[in-house]
Amino acid sequence: MTATSPTPDTASLAARLSQGDRAVLARAITLVESTKTVHRKEARALIREVLPHTGRARRIGVTGVPGVGKSTAIDALGSHLTASGLKVAVLAVDPSSTRTGGSILGDKTRMGRLALDPAAYVRPSPTAGTLGGVAAKTREAMLLCEAAGFDVVLVETVGTGQSETAVADMTDLFVVLALPGAGDELQGIKKGVLEIADIIAVNKADGDSLPRARRAAAELKAALRILGQDRATPVLTMSGLTGDGVAELWETIDAGWRKAEADGELAARRARQQLSWMWALVEERLRHKLTSDPMLAARRSEIERAVRDGRLDATLAADDIAALLGL
Amino acid sequence: MTATSPTPDTASLAARLSQGDRAVLARAITLVESTKTVHRKEARALIREVLPHTGRARRIGVTGVPGVGKSTAIDALGSHLTASGLKVAVLAVDPSSTRTGGSILGDKTRMGRLALDPAAYVRPSPTAGTLGGVAAKTREAMLLCEAAGFDVVLVETVGTGQSETAVADMTDLFVVLALPGAGDELQGIKKGVLEIADIIAVNKADGDSLPRARRAAAELKAALRILGQDRATPVLTMSGLTGDGVAELWETIDAGWRKAEADGELAARRARQQLSWMWALVEERLRHKLTSDPMLAARRSEIERAVRDGRLDATLAADDIAALLGL
Repeated sequence: MTATSPTPDTASLAARLSQGDRAVLARAITLVESTKTVHRKEARALIREVLPHTGRARRIGVTGVPGVGKSTAIDALGSHLTASGLKVAVLAVDPSSTRTGGSILGDKTRMGRLALDPAAYVRPSPTAGTLGGVAAKTREAMLLCEAAGFDVVLVETVGTGQSETAVADMTDLFVVLALPGAGDELQGIKKGVLEIADIIAVNKADGDSLPRARRAAAELKAALRILGQDRATPVLTMSGLTGDGVAELWETIDAGWRKAEADGELAARRARQQLSWMWALVEERLRHKLTSDPMLAARRSEIERAVRDGRLDATLAADDIAALLGL
Repeated sequence: MTATSPTPDTASLAARLSQGDRAVLARAITLVESTKTVHRKEARALIREVLPHTGRARRIGVTGVPGVGKSTAIDALGSHLTASGLKVAVLAVDPSSTRTGGSILGDKTRMGRLALDPAAYVRPSPTAGTLGGVAAKTREAMLLCEAAGFDVVLVETVGTGQSETAVADMTDLFVVLALPGAGDELQGIKKGVLEIADIIAVNKADGDSLPRARRAAAELKAALRILGQDRATPVLTMSGLTGDGVAELWETIDAGWRKAEADGELAARRARQQLSWMWALVEERLRHKLTSDPMLAARRSEIERAVRDGRLDATLAADDIAALLGL
């Protein structure tokens, strides 16, 4: 791959990608994850090339707090799908991850079955610092998976911070995993997450925990109804360990997806996501400009400090920033 | 007021504003609501002038779906406050409002007591089209009310659309009014609103509805606990009609406010609000530039259409928009 003429190479990479080879996919994702300017150019050419071959996968977000059994649940769900003849990619958005040898190994072993499954591709989270940066790269990786012919892309995220919103904003349906807990016990659902949940699955519904998981699901259902949620969010129980409820979870996901596709909601959601993504990227570029130029960066810090301290009103500060940017 | 030298006039307007005269306040708010360029300049000079005298009010957001009895509740709460010797301003964010003679009258009559109360100032929503525009003007009006010495600013909004988030983003505490309803009945709390609620008050807890209102409050409390909200949101009952529970509502608001002030959360929240407000305004200015120039506007529409149709990826589209803006 030469730095000066990226296009022929990206064209051949795109062509090989469409054959669904996982090694080629891995290489393509590494390219989009690179922060080097020359690689960014090639990555953009590649995305442009593969775009007509994207959009056909079911894009499913999955979240859950640590301890909810997310990896086991995804391993079970993914294996169920590959057993049905579907190709499954698992991506992640975790801005706190640092990819070392150890954690790659961790990522492979925590999804033991999928890691060995020829119809599956598991990729750890990119490590590019900010949530915006990590999410951008995962989103591009998702497009590459689609171009490589994957039928389902599962995008997982940790159940902490704002990464859930980022994943909900790039997927068609968002699944929240909860813990069995009853009454006063918490079920591991954070404030803000319910709003973006399309499906809630109480995991660890096995063995001694089964009755508690069922009670938890019933309580969640009742609570959602009482709180007047404006659509009925399905609440299921499942066990990543035994596989119970995994088929039902997929049926619920798939039924929701098909309904959204049929009534136009899927296309509308994706169009909205694309547009807001575009504006977010424009804003990021704008901030980048205000950070990379030392003069502008100094002035920006000054303005932000004055705003934070209440010495400068936001409206007036926006005037100053706009002037810096020549807007 | 001359167009060429706004500063002396705005300085005198600011000085008179600090004396707390409602007619001067009304005139100042009319100035910040104006969209004329010359008025915008004067308005900015005025805001710059009054800024050191702002920030001392309790900024309280209030929302509730139509039928929840919002006006009656605010009228009762506001009157309770003025009876305690506090000066109260009521502002509104309602992008759907069209201010005609009729609706000003409506606004005055729907808060019968406050409208006649010399310690209160009631101002209907500005009508400037977009939510962003309306919210910007209400936010500036809030600063003017503070400069005029008001102790409490109640910012109300309709319980539909995204205006709740806009109001929560400019206030210190956000109160959600709910309806008495039990079991399967909805209580008029919309998806997304719970996340930003600091206090929930079940209104219409009077007469025959009292038992239902109490049951509703108990159920809401239980539901919030089950859903694992990460802080305890107080749930109260009240009646705007009889005044029952109004004093308790204010005590709860005031206690929450004082706690936030003491532990630094108030200052942190306001600093966050100011910064995100600043960036939202920069983005708006950026979009404005892309709309006001016919060449840029045409190109922008083309790009947005291609993104919406899936012909152009968001990342590539952001490149194109950034190029248009010279970023």
